[in-house]
This record gives sequence, structure tokens and C-alpha cells, in this order.
Amino acid sequence: MECSTSYGIFLCLAASSNITTSGKDKSISTPEDYILVNMDGSLVLPSNLKPSAETLIHTSIYQRIPNCQAVFHVHMIPNNLISELYADQGKVTFMNHEIIKAFYIWKEGASITIPIVENYSSISKLAEEISKVIKPEVPGVLIRNHGIYAWGDSDFTAKRHLEAFEFLFEYQINMYFLKKFK
Amino acid sequence: MECSTSYGIFLCLAASSNITTSGKDKSISTPEDYILVNMDGSLVLPSNLKPSAETLIHTSIYQRIPNCQAVFHVHMIPNNLISELYADQGKVTFMNHEIIKAFYIWKEGASITIPIVENYSSISKLAEEISKVIKPEVPGVLIRNHGIYAWGDSDFTAKRHLEAFEFLFEYQINMYFLKKFK
Amino acid sequence: MECSTSYGIFLCLAASSNITTSGKDKSISTPEDYILVNMDGSLVLPSNLKPSAETLIHTSIYQRIPNCQAVFHVHMIPNNLISELYADQGKVTFMNHEIIKAFYIWKEGASITIPIVENYSSISKLAEEISKVIKPEVPGVLIRNHGIYAWGDSDFTAKRHLEAFEFLFEYQINMYFLKKFK
Amino acid sequence: MECSTSYGIFLCLAASSNITTSGKDKSISTPEDYILVNMDGSLVLPSNLKPSAETLIHTSIYQRIPNCQAVFHVHMIPNNLISELYADQGKVTFMNHEIIKAFYIWKEGASITIPIVENYSSISKLAEEISKVIKPEVPGVLIRNHGIYAWGDSDFTAKRHLEAFEFLFEYQINMYFLKKFK
Repeated sequence: MECSTSYGIFLCLAASSNITTSGKDKSISTPEDYILVNMDGSLVLPSNLKPSAETLIHTSIYQRIPNCQAVFHVHMIPNNLISELYADQGKVTFMNHEIIKAFYIWKEGASITIPIVENYSSISKLAEEISKVIKPEVPGVLIRNHGIYAWGDSDFTAKRHLEAFEFLFEYQINMYFLKKFK
Repeated sequence: MECSTSYGIFLCLAASSNITTSGKDKSISTPEDYILVNMDGSLVLPSNLKPSAETLIHTSIYQRIPNCQAVFHVHMIPNNLISELYADQGKVTFMNHEIIKAFYIWKEGASITIPIVENYSSISKLAEEISKVIKPEVPGVLIRNHGIYAWGDSDFTAKRHLEAFEFLFEYQINMYFLKKFK
Repeated sequence: MECSTSYGIFLCLAASSNITTSGKDKSISTPEDYILVNMDGSLVLPSNLKPSAETLIHTSIYQRIPNCQAVFHVHMIPNNLISELYADQGKVTFMNHEIIKAFYIWKEGASITIPIVENYSSISKLAEEISKVIKPEVPGVLIRNHGIYAWGDSDFTAKRHLEAFEFLFEYQINMYFLKKFK
Repeated sequence: MECSTSYGIFLCLAASSNITTSGKDKSISTPEDYILVNMDGSLVLPSNLKPSAETLIHTSIYQRIPNCQAVFHVHMIPNNLISELYADQGKVTFMNHEIIKAFYIWKEGASITIPIVENYSSISKLAEEISKVIKPEVPGVLIRNHGIYAWGDSDFTAKRHLEAFEFLFEYQINMYFLKKFK
């Protein structure tokens, strides 16, 4: 896997084999920010760098989802708010939104349900729980007060999915209030 | 018609005859993102590209509105929220705003009413409904939880109309709450 | 007076004598966007361009405020919301904010009160009302659902005043809700 | 100490000895915006420039916190709102957030409590109060309706702490409402 990062974004591409190192300023991306890992998260070559603590989550998504070629992980305030508001249900459903077509769901009255998992401090436990709830037809998962993982069969598709989810989250936070006072 | 797009924006100019192709990253605009279409949405020349699914909405606006030279289509959270909040009335009215002058409406106590249509999954049905409710004096229409179409007699005018509508939507969402607690 | 504009911003400097013309895309600023005017808003030289409709408001501020060297006028959602929420009182007061020092008011428990005028459609009436309520010690005035005029003894000072007002407006809109639910 | 500023940001680095001068446009940073100061805030060399009024706050943080190498001070709307909302308690606590790891706190169910001090108009009084409440394990302090000071053992660390605090503040303001209507 190859991973590149910019500030607040963590991206892994299946096509190559690098994982960004941990504890660096992600607003600056240089070759030294990359590292080669195997699908179990171990280093391909000896290195003084250590892969991101969440490498295992990326690899478990690649293993669970057929044709996954890129995984994004971002921490945004809207995705954190939604993950907390709907944590008790373990999921949140969006329907009657044009933007659902961004997930290649085109039927009338379409809906999409994204799962939410607790933010276990053990990464292997977290990776395992994520692996249990994700499904090929929904390209994302929320971790409570932690962020979203979104993926696709290309980096462009993964980015489109991520943007569509963030749009739905921000809409929902606003509508949550507005509907109360309608 | 000629159309150029940037991410989240879909623009068609009457002066030429291109429509952006569907399913491409709209943050990168190259000549291959353009395609020639007739006013019925059919291709002028054979091509492997396919025009945007919503080409027919653009063409129906050009046919209905005299002197229309540019049509923008954007998906923004404020326009989606407003389209949902006022969907039952099929329209939303703004008054006592200086920004209404952006629509060349200068009289004291001026108001502007933008129509809202349901988001039919059939584009031809959607184009037909839009054609029924739009009027030359109001350069825009909202589609429920989908986005806005805004137009003008030049690209600059269309952009000014779009920005004025978005300003009114964002103001209204905020004032919706504020007035409740006044 | 010399005026330069960028989109949504209208600036006049006393040091020279230009006013931006009306009806142009203010995101592009070229010499043709400038026009020479006298303090009564009339043209210094014959021109096909016409000065902004609100030139008289700028000139009346220069006449009323000693040492005024730059006047900004912007339309922002927070200033529009505040102007509507406090229109009945004809003013809004802010106190206990560090940012009040941006107005060179340094005393303990300082406050600043900005006047709000109705948005008369007659510019000469509007200029007259503004002239009545503005004072040298408060470098700004709100027009209901229209925008703010802010000024200073240099362009930098005028910009600092504008930014401080906008900070206070945005804070106040948020606190308006938060205090209700405390 | 060396300090550089950009608009709305005030930064001091222990490695050298400059403090930005007061009353300048902080969006433009040139060598003339720097000034050499001793740890008591006095000038190292005679100068026509005067150090920022809040230099003493920076120096008191350097004296209180071991290994502090950079101190940021910013005025943001979310940090102002949080400082007012929780002023009565003199502190605000955040827990169950992944972003708390940005403070190198990795344990399950981790929390962080940032102190809030009143905005005394006397800078020496303010510096003294800050000195009383800050602790090495929490790299920040809020001043009521004034802003945040955040620091770290490098400029990158200080920036990461600042961003993590701002994330928590913005989240909390939103959740404050959302929880009321759950």
C-alpha cells in the first residue's frame, strides 16, 4: 500500500505500499513521510520510521472490501458530531437526497445507512469491530468522536464518497435543529 | 451550448455547445471534459463521452427564458436546507433585503419568490416541472434536497444571481432560529 | 476620493478621487473600475461610467468624521443578521470583549455601541440618516439588512475596525443561542 | 525569544529573542515586525518599536512550563464563546475524544481540562493569574472573551495543540445545542 497525507487527511492506495509515519506535520508531504508496509501492518524494509497507529484499520478495510483501491481517514467536526448523536443506534440513515447518487445509488427514494462503532483504544479491537460492520455497498464507517473512514475503487471515487458523506453530515446537523422549530 | 465545470458547479453557456461529461472529477477541467450537444440534449458529433444526466434541465431553461445565456447548477448545504424547509409551500419568499437589488429589483419593500420543485428521479419529468414554474423575472429554481439552478443574460449576471440567492438562503437559515428565541 | 473594490467590498480613500463604477464584477479590479468624483458625488471629468449609487454615503461619512481617510462597505451575513435582530433598538452594544481594543478603547469594562439605521431606498435619505447617527468615537454604522460601513484614519485602521465589528457580530449571533440554553 | 506573527496569530519561539511590535498589520510579516526582548519583556537593544503589550504573558509561560519552546496566541470565535460559557467554573473539560491524543494523552477514557481566567485589563495581573493556573500537562489556557494561549516543546507541537483545542471548542459549541434537543 502507498499512503500520502495532508493535514487532517490520511490516505492509503492499494496500488503501492507506503504508510505515512506517525507524529509528523501532515501539512507537509515529502518522500520521508512514506513508509512501506505489508497487509498485516508490518514493515517491508527495516526503517527508523513507524507506521501510523491506525495502519491496521486501513489494511482490514482492504481485506474486507473487494476492489477497494483507496481509503481516506479524516477528522471533521460534522462527522464527529453525527457519530456522537447517533452512537446509541450504531448507525445513521440518510434518505431523499440527490447526493446519494454519489454512491452510485440511483433508485427513487434511495437511502444509505452508515455504521458507527465505538472508539476502542485498542487499534486491533477497533479494526476488528470495523471489519464486522462494513459492507461493500456502503463505502464508509464512522468511529464515535474519532472520524470517518471512506473508500472506493479509485482515489477519485473514495474522495467523492467522502465528500458526499460530509455533505450529508453537515446537512443533518443543521436540519436536526431546524426540524425542531418548524 | 458550451459548458464548463469546476467541482460542485455545472455551468452552461448558450453561446457555444458543450456539456460536461458525467462521472469525472469536476475539480479538473480540460477540453476532454467538454462535449457538444443539441438543444434536445443529443450529441452533435459521435463521442464516447456521455453528456451530464441533467443536460435536459439546462436546455429546458434556455428554451423557457428569453435572453438566457448562462445557467449554473450547484449543490450547497444552505440551498438544500431551504428547499426542504419550504418544500410544502412549493416556494420561498425573501423581502426587505438590500441584496434583492442583485436581481435588478430596486423598488422599496421589494421581494423575490423562488419556486421549489420535488426531486423527481426522472430527469425529463424534472425538466418539465421546472419549465412549468420558472419565470423570466426570477432567475432561479430550487429542487428539493438537490440544489439550485440559477441563470442570467451573461455568465457574470448568472453568477451574481447565484451568489445573491445563496446569501439569502444562508441568512434565512440563521434567522429561522434567531427569530424563534427573540 | 480614490476607491478600489474587490468582490463584496467597496473601499474609498480620501487621498485620491475615484469611485468604483456600478454593475461590474467586483472580483476583477482594473483601472477602468475607477472613476473620479467630487465630494458631492458628481464626476470630476466627463465619463461614460457612472459612480456607485452609494457614493453619497461615502462622501457624507468623510464630511462628518474628522481625519477619516478610508471607508469600507461590505455585505456579510453576520452584519445583516445583527442589523435585523437589533433594528428595533436602533443600535447594538458590545462589552467585555478584548477585541474592543481594536477600536483604541482600552479602559476596564469598555463597551462599544454601533448605530443601526433603516435601509431607506433613497440614497440621499439614507446618507442623511447615517450622517445623523454616526460619531467620531465609533467607526461604523449598520444599515438594516444591507451591510456595514466602517472607517478609519488609514486603510489599515479601517480594515482593523471592520474585522473587529465582524468578529463581534459573529460572536453575538452564536452567543444569542447559547445563552438561551445555558 | 523570537516571535513572528500573521494576522490574528501571535507566536513566540524560545530559541531566539524577538517580539512582534504592537499596532501593525499582522497579515504582513517583515523583519521590522520583530524586536528583541529579555524574559522580563524589556528591550535587549534600544529601539523605536515597542513590544506587544502581552509580551509578559508569553514570558511568564516560558518561565512556568519546562521545555516550552513556542507559544501561540489567537483570538477565535469558538475559543471566545467557550471561555464565556464556562467562565463561572474557571475551566472546561473534554473527554471521550480521539483528538485528545494530540496532547499525548493516550489512555482509555482520557480527558483534558483547560483553565479559564478572567480578562484582567492589567497585563501583569493577567500574566500572574495565568501563571497560577497553568500546568505542564495541559498546554493551554483560555482568557475570558479574549483568546487562547497554547504552547509546546516545538512550534509544530504548539500548533498541533492549538488546533486540537480549537477542534474541541467548535465541537462543544455545536454539541451544546444538539444535546439540548436530543
